[in-house]
Amino acid sequence: MGPPRVVAMGGGHGLSASLQALRHITEAITAVVTVADDGGSSGRLRREFDILPPGDLRMALAALCEDTAWGHQWSAVLQHRLSGTSGLAGHPIGNLLIMGLWELLDDDPVRGLDLVGRLLNTRGRVLPASSIPLDIEATVAGLDPDDPDAHTVVRGQSTVAKTPGRVLSVRLLPEDPPAAPEAVEAIKLADWVILGPGSWFTSVMPHLLVPDLQRALVDSPARRILTLNVGTDDDETHGFSAAEHLEVLSAHAPDLQLDYVVVDPTVVRSDDEVLREVAAGVGAELMVAPVRKMRTRDQHDTLRLAAAYRDVILGG
Amino acid sequence: MGPPRVVAMGGGHGLSASLQALRHITEAITAVVTVADDGGSSGRLRREFDILPPGDLRMALAALCEDTAWGHQWSAVLQHRLSGTSGLAGHPIGNLLIMGLWELLDDDPVRGLDLVGRLLNTRGRVLPASSIPLDIEATVAGLDPDDPDAHTVVRGQSTVAKTPGRVLSVRLLPEDPPAAPEAVEAIKLADWVILGPGSWFTSVMPHLLVPDLQRALVDSPARRILTLNVGTDDDETHGFSAAEHLEVLSAHAPDLQLDYVVVDPTVVRSDDEVLREVAAGVGAELMVAPVRKMRTRDQHDTLRLAAAYRDVILGG
Repeated sequence: MGPPRVVAMGGGHGLSASLQALRHITEAITAVVTVADDGGSSGRLRREFDILPPGDLRMALAALCEDTAWGHQWSAVLQHRLSGTSGLAGHPIGNLLIMGLWELLDDDPVRGLDLVGRLLNTRGRVLPASSIPLDIEATVAGLDPDDPDAHTVVRGQSTVAKTPGRVLSVRLLPEDPPAAPEAVEAIKLADWVILGPGSWFTSVMPHLLVPDLQRALVDSPARRILTLNVGTDDDETHGFSAAEHLEVLSAHAPDLQLDYVVVDPTVVRSDDEVLREVAAGVGAELMVAPVRKMRTRDQHDTLRLAAAYRDVILGG
Repeated sequence: MGPPRVVAMGGGHGLSASLQALRHITEAITAVVTVADDGGSSGRLRREFDILPPGDLRMALAALCEDTAWGHQWSAVLQHRLSGTSGLAGHPIGNLLIMGLWELLDDDPVRGLDLVGRLLNTRGRVLPASSIPLDIEATVAGLDPDDPDAHTVVRGQSTVAKTPGRVLSVRLLPEDPPAAPEAVEAIKLADWVILGPGSWFTSVMPHLLVPDLQRALVDSPARRILTLNVGTDDDETHGFSAAEHLEVLSAHAPDLQLDYVVVDPTVVRSDDEVLREVAAGVGAELMVAPVRKMRTRDQHDTLRLAAAYRDVILGG
């Protein structure tokens, strides 16, 4: 029996934290990464080159670089953003490397990412959630000062992530996009699938809106972990309780059952029982464990998160 | 006794051919690379970021990538130029990688190049000839249709390399630039130094115009090989015979003695004796050996050049 096969789904810093933690547990990691970013370097590159936005993929690759001086240097290089004032300014080296590989390999995104992984000697595999670039559209309340209950449609991941309103639901454009077949396959073969942490509506929910991914996730024999955020007050989920995060998930994927919900004690202090009930409603056991950094607010600590995953996946 | 320590000086495709050949002979290779390019991606980057032009350095790194599938892939990635229509278009991935490392390491160019070398697991070491970006200025005849003997001053490596006139001499701007100390040290400790092949006035001569490099080259106990071009009709030396190439070298470095002049038989067919005499004038033995590609015009063949270097350096 090999190491447990774990699929981690998400994007941005949340997925990065999850991947760095998982490296302490297993080498058989597959990251399934959101491809709906439309801001910053990723937004500029997808508009100019009609490619998947590379930013979240790059962050996942950086998180999976070798745990050696060489790997740490590569990770820093991938994340380094060029300075200057021209069209180069602000692009992380890793985004340009991924894009260059896609050009070299005739735009087969998975083959390009696999080659980047080999060139950097990363652990595990980084896959896009969909084989085409996606956009996010959200229904938001509270944007109209005259009518706080009015619903507004907000479009674009970077805009939704920063909306001062209250996000009610998200959709993908195009609707029903194709999943990357390799991602579906990885979920089918996984022992464990981990959702979250991350920006709830823009990094965690989008995977559930790719029909083949949601179906694979619901049908997979893998056990499912949901990792809740340690900070629940980023813009897009401002004011949402931990239980409401879970309810949002169920609203977007009604058939999805979970096995464990990993949550930091500071997040559930006041509504422990409510959260326990909502978790039980989707079949999940609540795993309250310290996973937060001591000194930096609202970030998962890699080693503490690794300890929590180890307790769940390998047994405490 | 270790492998012979060889320093190869030049730039562009000529240096690249020399380095690829040397890899069959020794692992102790140092490339000392011209930093006067002002055209294309290098020109744009040096103007925007006030850095050494990275293009010739990138080509040398690509030539020294591992001789494995992994190394060949890295070499292709370094050389791949981004497409598109924005400020990214035309930049080779390797140039952006070098520039990113320079930014990360606070612009210490040698430390940045050493780190790129480690990240790519290249053989040998790639050093800039000077620690500051240089410009080339040439005195050219034949540009004035009314007075073919009139001398014109032409500035910029990319302009000089393509001048339809006859280059008489080149100078560096600034005059007397500082050598990279690591390059001087490498020449002092070398068993062999190789000059050429390459664009004569814009890739081979510039090294001799860095005073500390010329002095190190003249004083070094290393034996010196000059590799003449297989094509003698690129723009900047159009109509120059092989012997005239050698005379140009002596005009720019009067005290420089050589040990061997490596030349393809097709280049010396008509003036073998003249060339032999001019070579003897700088202390060099003429080594006539087939070093040219059979099918591609005017390029050195890596394996044939390796055979010639082996005959000279290790004994035939």
